Amino acid sequence: MLIDWPLDRLREYRPARDEPADFDDFWAETLSRSRAAGWDATFEPHDAGLSLVDVFDVTFAGYAGHPVRGWLVLPRGADGPLPCVVEYIGYGGGRGLPIEWLLWANAGYAHFVMDTRGQGSGGYLTGDTPDPDEAGGPQTPGFMTRGITDPQRYYYRRVFTDAVRAVDAARAHPRVDAARVAVTGGSQGGGISLAVSGLVEGLRAVAPDVPFLCQYRRATEITDERPYQELVTYLKTHRDHVEQAFTTLSYFDGVNFAARATAPALFSVALMDAVCPPSTVFAAYNHYAAADKDITVWPYNGHEGGQAFQATAKLAFLRERLAGG
Amino acid sequence: MLIDWPLDRLREYRPARDEPADFDDFWAETLSRSRAAGWDATFEPHDAGLSLVDVFDVTFAGYAGHPVRGWLVLPRGADGPLPCVVEYIGYGGGRGLPIEWLLWANAGYAHFVMDTRGQGSGGYLTGDTPDPDEAGGPQTPGFMTRGITDPQRYYYRRVFTDAVRAVDAARAHPRVDAARVAVTGGSQGGGISLAVSGLVEGLRAVAPDVPFLCQYRRATEITDERPYQELVTYLKTHRDHVEQAFTTLSYFDGVNFAARATAPALFSVALMDAVCPPSTVFAAYNHYAAADKDITVWPYNGHEGGQAFQATAKLAFLRERLAGG
Amino acid sequence: MLIDWPLDRLREYRPARDEPADFDDFWAETLSRSRAAGWDATFEPHDAGLSLVDVFDVTFAGYAGHPVRGWLVLPRGADGPLPCVVEYIGYGGGRGLPIEWLLWANAGYAHFVMDTRGQGSGGYLTGDTPDPDEAGGPQTPGFMTRGITDPQRYYYRRVFTDAVRAVDAARAHPRVDAARVAVTGGSQGGGISLAVSGLVEGLRAVAPDVPFLCQYRRATEITDERPYQELVTYLKTHRDHVEQAFTTLSYFDGVNFAARATAPALFSVALMDAVCPPSTVFAAYNHYAAADKDITVWPYNGHEGGQAFQATAKLAFLRERLAGG
Amino acid sequence: MLIDWPLDRLREYRPARDEPADFDDFWAETLSRSRAAGWDATFEPHDAGLSLVDVFDVTFAGYAGHPVRGWLVLPRGADGPLPCVVEYIGYGGGRGLPIEWLLWANAGYAHFVMDTRGQGSGGYLTGDTPDPDEAGGPQTPGFMTRGITDPQRYYYRRVFTDAVRAVDAARAHPRVDAARVAVTGGSQGGGISLAVSGLVEGLRAVAPDVPFLCQYRRATEITDERPYQELVTYLKTHRDHVEQAFTTLSYFDGVNFAARATAPALFSVALMDAVCPPSTVFAAYNHYAAADKDITVWPYNGHEGGQAFQATAKLAFLRERLAGG
Amino acid sequence: MLIDWPLDRLREYRPARDEPADFDDFWAETLSRSRAAGWDATFEPHDAGLSLVDVFDVTFAGYAGHPVRGWLVLPRGADGPLPCVVEYIGYGGGRGLPIEWLLWANAGYAHFVMDTRGQGSGGYLTGDTPDPDEAGGPQTPGFMTRGITDPQRYYYRRVFTDAVRAVDAARAHPRVDAARVAVTGGSQGGGISLAVSGLVEGLRAVAPDVPFLCQYRRATEITDERPYQELVTYLKTHRDHVEQAFTTLSYFDGVNFAARATAPALFSVALMDAVCPPSTVFAAYNHYAAADKDITVWPYNGHEGGQAFQATAKLAFLRERLAGG
Amino acid sequence: MLIDWPLDRLREYRPARDEPADFDDFWAETLSRSRAAGWDATFEPHDAGLSLVDVFDVTFAGYAGHPVRGWLVLPRGADGPLPCVVEYIGYGGGRGLPIEWLLWANAGYAHFVMDTRGQGSGGYLTGDTPDPDEAGGPQTPGFMTRGITDPQRYYYRRVFTDAVRAVDAARAHPRVDAARVAVTGGSQGGGISLAVSGLVEGLRAVAPDVPFLCQYRRATEITDERPYQELVTYLKTHRDHVEQAFTTLSYFDGVNFAARATAPALFSVALMDAVCPPSTVFAAYNHYAAADKDITVWPYNGHEGGQAFQATAKLAFLRERLAGG
Repeated sequence: MLIDWPLDRLREYRPARDEPADFDDFWAETLSRSRAAGWDATFEPHDAGLSLVDVFDVTFAGYAGHPVRGWLVLPRGADGPLPCVVEYIGYGGGRGLPIEWLLWANAGYAHFVMDTRGQGSGGYLTGDTPDPDEAGGPQTPGFMTRGITDPQRYYYRRVFTDAVRAVDAARAHPRVDAARVAVTGGSQGGGISLAVSGLVEGLRAVAPDVPFLCQYRRATEITDERPYQELVTYLKTHRDHVEQAFTTLSYFDGVNFAARATAPALFSVALMDAVCPPSTVFAAYNHYAAADKDITVWPYNGHEGGQAFQATAKLAFLRERLAGG
Repeated sequence: MLIDWPLDRLREYRPARDEPADFDDFWAETLSRSRAAGWDATFEPHDAGLSLVDVFDVTFAGYAGHPVRGWLVLPRGADGPLPCVVEYIGYGGGRGLPIEWLLWANAGYAHFVMDTRGQGSGGYLTGDTPDPDEAGGPQTPGFMTRGITDPQRYYYRRVFTDAVRAVDAARAHPRVDAARVAVTGGSQGGGISLAVSGLVEGLRAVAPDVPFLCQYRRATEITDERPYQELVTYLKTHRDHVEQAFTTLSYFDGVNFAARATAPALFSVALMDAVCPPSTVFAAYNHYAAADKDITVWPYNGHEGGQAFQATAKLAFLRERLAGG
Repeated sequence: MLIDWPLDRLREYRPARDEPADFDDFWAETLSRSRAAGWDATFEPHDAGLSLVDVFDVTFAGYAGHPVRGWLVLPRGADGPLPCVVEYIGYGGGRGLPIEWLLWANAGYAHFVMDTRGQGSGGYLTGDTPDPDEAGGPQTPGFMTRGITDPQRYYYRRVFTDAVRAVDAARAHPRVDAARVAVTGGSQGGGISLAVSGLVEGLRAVAPDVPFLCQYRRATEITDERPYQELVTYLKTHRDHVEQAFTTLSYFDGVNFAARATAPALFSVALMDAVCPPSTVFAAYNHYAAADKDITVWPYNGHEGGQAFQATAKLAFLRERLAGG
Repeated sequence: MLIDWPLDRLREYRPARDEPADFDDFWAETLSRSRAAGWDATFEPHDAGLSLVDVFDVTFAGYAGHPVRGWLVLPRGADGPLPCVVEYIGYGGGRGLPIEWLLWANAGYAHFVMDTRGQGSGGYLTGDTPDPDEAGGPQTPGFMTRGITDPQRYYYRRVFTDAVRAVDAARAHPRVDAARVAVTGGSQGGGISLAVSGLVEGLRAVAPDVPFLCQYRRATEITDERPYQELVTYLKTHRDHVEQAFTTLSYFDGVNFAARATAPALFSVALMDAVCPPSTVFAAYNHYAAADKDITVWPYNGHEGGQAFQATAKLAFLRERLAGG
Repeated sequence: MLIDWPLDRLREYRPARDEPADFDDFWAETLSRSRAAGWDATFEPHDAGLSLVDVFDVTFAGYAGHPVRGWLVLPRGADGPLPCVVEYIGYGGGRGLPIEWLLWANAGYAHFVMDTRGQGSGGYLTGDTPDPDEAGGPQTPGFMTRGITDPQRYYYRRVFTDAVRAVDAARAHPRVDAARVAVTGGSQGGGISLAVSGLVEGLRAVAPDVPFLCQYRRATEITDERPYQELVTYLKTHRDHVEQAFTTLSYFDGVNFAARATAPALFSVALMDAVCPPSTVFAAYNHYAAADKDITVWPYNGHEGGQAFQATAKLAFLRERLAGG
Repeated sequence: MLIDWPLDRLREYRPARDEPADFDDFWAETLSRSRAAGWDATFEPHDAGLSLVDVFDVTFAGYAGHPVRGWLVLPRGADGPLPCVVEYIGYGGGRGLPIEWLLWANAGYAHFVMDTRGQGSGGYLTGDTPDPDEAGGPQTPGFMTRGITDPQRYYYRRVFTDAVRAVDAARAHPRVDAARVAVTGGSQGGGISLAVSGLVEGLRAVAPDVPFLCQYRRATEITDERPYQELVTYLKTHRDHVEQAFTTLSYFDGVNFAARATAPALFSVALMDAVCPPSTVFAAYNHYAAADKDITVWPYNGHEGGQAFQATAKLAFLRERLAGG
């Protein structure tokens, strides 16, 4: 069934943004400090038993210079700098094994997959990056509430910074054309893509699928599904932290990043998605500041969204945006 | 939790086979009739937006000459006849989109994916092959009880015949080396692989993962999970069809096919798999007649089995068995 | 809880109908072809161990002349032609055993129970009629999406035609008064009753209980329950078939049949029914074209509706409408 | 899946009985006191809108002379005294409406349906008899623990006495042949039938289906299903009442009644029945003291058991046992 | 998620009251009869192994003089009459063990805990008081529907009378200051507190947490959770008792008692509470007739409400209201 | 139902211990380092609104000197050093509010409640202590797998050390008699109590209720309940970490600590506890090395165990063991 408003109303939904005054300063300082703590990424050749692509095991400098893992998959034998797709992972997953990431290289792109710190033990894509946890405070099982009482210590400050630095690392690779980079991901990976869309200059394209990490308060009020439910569990326990938590989250709301974006975008949303409710996605889409934007609506899908159908749409979208040199 | 016996007991479990006297005649006649009704497969080039592989939309002659769909994915620009992996799909799935099938071509093989008639509407891989009848097209499951009162009309008679004919079609393709063919698949695809292992000569390798369609009676007695549960629902209604149904199923039990197999095999099994209980898998494995066989045991997995870890194991297994020319 | 609008709003709900221009032609041609393929029904005496009623095992010519099974139950020793109640079965059920159908004969009517092709393995009423195809026999559901891409091949084209032909067969029986026939059924049986109400002339009464098969699109948007959920599962897979499917369904929507009905009607609806949501029932009821109509509202029931309380209401309703000779 | 031992072991399972020394005295005194408090049953004609049967609304003297309701359904126009089937109802149900009880009268028997005191609000068969509760002590919601700390006050002391008195009332009716009475019922009705089999002389047949109320302790140890689960909930709260409760229950265990039975019996059991686990049924069956006994085993059914298939078996069983005059 | 309206709307929600004309007469007569049947409470010293408090096992005269149990817990060694908190228990619970009731005595108050007749076997707090049931009529398992067809026989007539008489008994104790009594309780205990607030003169404070037993009809329409669901189960069976049941309930609706209250009150409500939906709580709060009232809103809690956070709020609230002599 | 072996077999179950050779060295070094990093605990008076007890907000030096929170609750006005009960909390909970901890002070003891680092956001007892996480590696949501690839970095190394240091801190308080200390806790708190029983000298009593953290491998094989299920989720993802994880866990198995214990003990176990299965509890109990030991068996309880009934048993047990000076 529909889990949110009908499509007509969703298309018009453009809620007031809850944005702290120092939002830009917060992020400028965060990024400049982490860039200052950076070092050159390493790219170790990795034998995945494949003959059409080359795989590299990546370690790059993320938040505060923390080492973050990833994969770089390149079409074997391609000449010259390649356009590059940087991809972020859904909640609970990690970078997995390289044989799980063949699509973009098969389409002729460099493909940079970022591991998500701390994640990758959720029963599917395995992960390899620790989260050197600055906060350590009480949290509800999961990651959404790690450090939630303080924007400086909140988990996604580290993850979003990692994600910006992943673009930096990809751009610095000799086989990548730094001017032709796109970011994408589904669910949490879509939310991270949105953050990057507001924090990184000069992207060629942004493709968030059924993005998570948008409009936290409304999300907690209209769905019981995890991971937004982790917030509810935290706040049902720490009844005295409600406003403090939402203040923190205002620094990490995809809606606020979308309002700063400039790159062409292709969103997707599913009308039966109770994990990332459609109104929270449309809130970000309707605030997305670039004129060249579109959203694919999957009326009968849940959080799986368009899957290979959406991948096909993204292949076409990126072919246009990443073309040329 | 473990859903079946401990591993030690599983390794010893080799139950008496329930096999009808005319098992071989039944299948010989089934296959010869369908081969007689055959015609040449067609391979239409398909633009999937990829640059490292060539994709063909296949239509081949299945059971009784019914047209069955598939994909053939080839490494672009490879020379000479290639070893080929023929793959069968899990229950409820169809051939999907070609971008969902990149692994084996990326490893340098021809990859032939067979659609499963009638299936492909179960919420994941989409399908395009009817199960000929007046109505036709794909439908939401279930299929386990279609025609169960008569071996001649049972659904899997048509599917297993399609699967044998898919190998025939793959072998007939000019870019495939007919002497170097392997079959694989997970769950239902594993069960089909077992059927093919007992019905086709000269395979180089068989790799059934967490196979379904083995030891039906025991399966219904130890699990409540679908799809074996479809049998239970049928038999709880048709209380007078119990023995008739199991007589039919004895013609389609993976254990009986395994006992006729000659090709090297790599099985996998998961000890927390309630969909395809471990004892039903070991029953087939322990009866598997080839000496060159092994089974990967995943102690903490459910029906997902080894996923990319098992794919990695299969890459190594096939590299050896499919080598040479 | 209420699963739909409050009763006041339901009583006013009369949505625009989505009806194809050739709706009447489609059905006229469908019925005339099947009638042309017809043959005389057979009525075999059946010993059910009962002494107050006579039971006959019926085989009649359904869609395209396909043999369809049923039961005819007659009060033993009754004189002259009897008024007749033709009954259709709920989703997943078949004609069952005759001892499950004693009510209407005990009330003095001929009772004709139609088996539903392909169904009757769902865990309750057993069925005996194949849905002709090469495979045939009853199977575990679902049926809602069989042939959904083409109105000519859609499953309910065959079922609704069977249902019209069941009335024809009942009317032709010597102990039945062809001028005094009523149709009834619950859930799917109610949906079939509605179809018959729009396709058959001269019925004395129509009594659909909690009818299914009305307002498909709205149903998929407001409930997650099966069987409407089968449509959702199909469309979440075949994302490119959405409009095609709803075009097909517009030929089979109870709302469109209701708008053509002329016989007196007694509907029932339950306000806590998530399987056949109240608004979809009221859509049909409010469009039902006969002036002599009423609807029993069960405020605290789910899909079970009024059960024996509604049967009591129907006994009174039919006593009036089927009286006389 | 099987929820208990395999059938071979079930057939051999004949556990030691836990029976108090004064079991027979307890019941002899209970029944003699209630018979002393008795009065003549009333049979009010009831118009159910039927023409083949006559229906009477019964009120008879149950435990301690409490008025208990029931239905008597008779084949209209039958001559002479009829054999009679006395029926008891499943847990949570009441006597319902008379149109729900047509089978046995249609087979030519008088049919006496006993309401279960206090029950009949569970969502299906409605009830009309209060339980003037002598105990009133704390209980877990439901009836299984009402008065459980004292055999004199336990709920089923009243119900089993009602059931014996129902046979008395049926036998006293002028259209019933007191020498040809059978008792039957499913689940709780089967458990009550067993109690009656051990407490009433001269029955012609006993037919308990998937009987409840046997081997309470084992039942609580092997199933989580209601209603046995009510005992667990009670005992998890009243941790100090465990032995007291089982002492009470030993006066009400179907196994102990079965050991005193003399009438021919047809049991039924379902191997996937988690509500009344098979071993608790076989415990009663294997102790059942009459030589003329049989048990129908439904291997693929849950608590629904054989339904109309079992009813058919009972029609044949009773035709033989209730024949003659 | 929110299970009811947003907070703004809740704050304005003051529905028309459904109140019978003889509401006050009904209760005046009920109470005067039970007071006439009263006798002096007994207070037996009880050794709970504690050294800071004295515990007494209470038996007092409840409805119709029925003996009702309770605990009185006093700070050991306190001088003079103490202010007293009378507490009622949530649905399914009983008075438990005295070590479960230490808070109010530790805060310096006399604490009188009333057992709830018939309850106390629900898996948590154990109970010891029978409900000598005057009605005994069919009920849905549980207590909400016991005697629901008649206000005179309805279960809560007895419970609410017990609760008034508990205040009487507490006030009569020599160590209690009869002028300084507060009542409190959560869920059912909150509903009982509301009843007492409208039936007892001269209370110093009323503190109902997430109160149950308010606005029954709306509750059944917006939640599927127990115990309101017991009403639904009853009414889905007894389809002909709907209006009769709501007439009975109108004598027991917390909204009607609140409209008669005069004591200062502190309510609590939780916006994610599906057991006692927020609108039913606000209906009572907004009708509560005393000017000195407040409500604590827990936005992220379910039926657990504020727990120790709310207890802390009540400690402060009572410290002010129970001060002085 | 029983979720494990029958009681007779449980009483005999004394499995071989899986214990690393350097177990004692590991812990000796761990504790000596943390003690070396210690500093004096602080005890801030806290106004909880109570008059019978004094409450102190504790901060003490835990693992590596990390600050850990707790509560100290003392009977107000008690003379001289008091015997002390140190309590650890169940999984997901924190130290909560002091009004939640009144029992032991009301019995005349000093009561020291230790917060569990990182926990206390699970929906019940709130927590206030961060886990300065040394490891940070990928984990499954929850705490059981934090740092599981290395005993040095495993989460419970820090927690168990905190627990030992809590005893140190309690013993150092002037109102506590260091010679009369007992430890207790339920579930995780029971598991921590067991660890302390093997690591701390001179305890007077140990009272673990339904202890968690024992026999990890068997636990994962016989239950699907959390938190043991977190291990399963981790290992189903990190298929290559299975043996490494169990090696780590062997340093933290309650069975190994129990084998080193010397203090009198009262365990409890519940036979229907699927969270901490009975055999894992009996494994620890049967290996518990002190002669003065007993175990309370709750046959009809789940993980709630004996609750206030067990607390009553512990009051008696501790009264004897903590007596004297």
